Amino acid sequence: MLVGEENYQTIWLKQEGWVQVIDQRHLPFEFIIRDLRSLQDTWWAIREMVVRGAPLIGVAASFGIYLALMEDSCEARWQQRLQSSAEHLRTARPTGVNLAYAIDRQLERLSEVATLEQARKKALETARQLKEQEKENCRLIGEHGMPLIRDLAEKKNGKPVNILTHCNAGWLATVDHGTATAPIYKAHDQGIPVHVWVDETRPRNQGARLTAWELEQHGVPYTVVADNTGGLLMQKGMVDMVIVGSDRTTANGDVANKIGTYLKALAARDNNIPFYAALPLSTIDRNLTNGIRDIPIEQRNKEEVKYIEGYSEGRLRKVLLTPEKSRVANYGFDVTPAAYVTSLITEKGVCKPNQQDIEKLFQS
Amino acid sequence: MLVGEENYQTIWLKQEGWVQVIDQRHLPFEFIIRDLRSLQDTWWAIREMVVRGAPLIGVAASFGIYLALMEDSCEARWQQRLQSSAEHLRTARPTGVNLAYAIDRQLERLSEVATLEQARKKALETARQLKEQEKENCRLIGEHGMPLIRDLAEKKNGKPVNILTHCNAGWLATVDHGTATAPIYKAHDQGIPVHVWVDETRPRNQGARLTAWELEQHGVPYTVVADNTGGLLMQKGMVDMVIVGSDRTTANGDVANKIGTYLKALAARDNNIPFYAALPLSTIDRNLTNGIRDIPIEQRNKEEVKYIEGYSEGRLRKVLLTPEKSRVANYGFDVTPAAYVTSLITEKGVCKPNQQDIEKLFQS
Repeated sequence: MLVGEENYQTIWLKQEGWVQVIDQRHLPFEFIIRDLRSLQDTWWAIREMVVRGAPLIGVAASFGIYLALMEDSCEARWQQRLQSSAEHLRTARPTGVNLAYAIDRQLERLSEVATLEQARKKALETARQLKEQEKENCRLIGEHGMPLIRDLAEKKNGKPVNILTHCNAGWLATVDHGTATAPIYKAHDQGIPVHVWVDETRPRNQGARLTAWELEQHGVPYTVVADNTGGLLMQKGMVDMVIVGSDRTTANGDVANKIGTYLKALAARDNNIPFYAALPLSTIDRNLTNGIRDIPIEQRNKEEVKYIEGYSEGRLRKVLLTPEKSRVANYGFDVTPAAYVTSLITEKGVCKPNQQDIEKLFQS
Repeated sequence: MLVGEENYQTIWLKQEGWVQVIDQRHLPFEFIIRDLRSLQDTWWAIREMVVRGAPLIGVAASFGIYLALMEDSCEARWQQRLQSSAEHLRTARPTGVNLAYAIDRQLERLSEVATLEQARKKALETARQLKEQEKENCRLIGEHGMPLIRDLAEKKNGKPVNILTHCNAGWLATVDHGTATAPIYKAHDQGIPVHVWVDETRPRNQGARLTAWELEQHGVPYTVVADNTGGLLMQKGMVDMVIVGSDRTTANGDVANKIGTYLKALAARDNNIPFYAALPLSTIDRNLTNGIRDIPIEQRNKEEVKYIEGYSEGRLRKVLLTPEKSRVANYGFDVTPAAYVTSLITEKGVCKPNQQDIEKLFQS
């Protein structure tokens, strides 16, 4: 997607043994590109959330394995050192599914080769493949979701389609396009007028910081609102559709996503507004059928609620928001029951959130 | 209510011609008492939100008229100067209904007296009466609301009743007790175990700053959460009831309150949790019967969304949260339809949110 006049992705190979990423910790205030030249650089970038978003973490880890092999200059026992590199990288964000998946995929492929030189080649190929696959999934989500926006646009007599989104399921969380944003970018690029209501998404403000920045850079009209605002906007007819991402979706279509998503789904339902979740099929956990009961909800660092980070006098600064000794709780996700989800938008097409229709996509 | 070991109200007469208030701009970080010794001090205190909350603004304005008369040392034409003082005070917060009401009430009473000395006496009496009336209304809301908590407590086997509230409808917004908080303080003081989920209430964070501070000072257990969290808490059975305040309620029980209230009402309904609005009858606008259509929604300063104020390195500081040029919107209120409100808690008793039952309270 565009940053200023240039097309960017979140991660790229600069040259042999040298990866670059956008440092997301400083957005939207500063645009900084970081070099990753080693396994340790990659570990740090994932740990410190220089890169974040499940698909991007996976791709970064995959490149991290490649960088580990490039660093290694000794043919003897390279496989052993690879194993310990992989174990170290796994500790960067212990809860991420994509991180483990990407590392395992590399190890599996690398078990097929004999020499360090072959391993380097294979690791780069694997990392590039994963990157392309993640990008293609998002592109296809855009292809399949765009007509939903186009259909609404046809009823709006040239006025923009108002789309509400929550958190950042944008290209910064993936390689390019994003998930929830993919249909929006696609529609915008085709000249369909859209306007995005961006929930700021407390406590970490991924909406106000990342989604707002993305949309602004790509030239998509948007307005940031406090998370409390969406209900009123829907009551007043100012929202035509909701599109969110998902961190985990059950076999029957219950959607776990950033905390607060469920409240917007309720308001959408109360005001007859379609509510979509955009996600790659890899997000669907086919073993689960009751999201509220079965999906564990991560409790995150309480400091994220007590303090907030913003820009002041030329630097990022944390300020205290509550009484110093205040008890706070910080739950990361909630679950929107399938009954409140209009459809899922995936790389294989749009489907109703029920077991039968979801399973069909896997078989197609 | 308690601050440390001492009982406080939000406003009091220190001695003749000298009023004091708690400076709410610095809470919860600093506890500062301000002197109001003149009309201009009062104007400033209302304008700068040293005091805020509709009932408290009214009481402060009423004392402001008294202070204006105390400043005036010339018997000749004191009535004329009183009129211009009143007009000036009205400009402090042009949208507040209680402000105008309190000033008009003073002017009406003062039209009955002849001398400046009599006027001073009458103005002080009127201000004190208004203060006592506001306080008594809140006390009665507590009396009538407390049994709702007690009934829930009886089913909890000694475990605390979990009450979610939004914004600050606490004693800081009134003279004492608060509206939404009055039943909570009453229950707590009677030894009923309660725990309050405090929505931080973006964008101005009245929950995280004021409600949290109030509850902490009075020793009521509480936990601050991001506004996004309430839905999950209700899904998980962690909320037994919701109590909020109201800025304006229609004749049929539609409740306008701080933006985001409606989302919590939807979640309460979806999870079979009772949702109460606590309010003095003066909040009910008997001319309106369709809240969503008829209650105008104030749009506030956009800077409140773009920037947030918190405490850092020994002082209050504003930090930027969005891209510098970001478009933002800042709607102050939303409307919860009567159908989603379990009951209203008023100084005359608890009633169902419908025209007939509300009208009965006015006649009682």
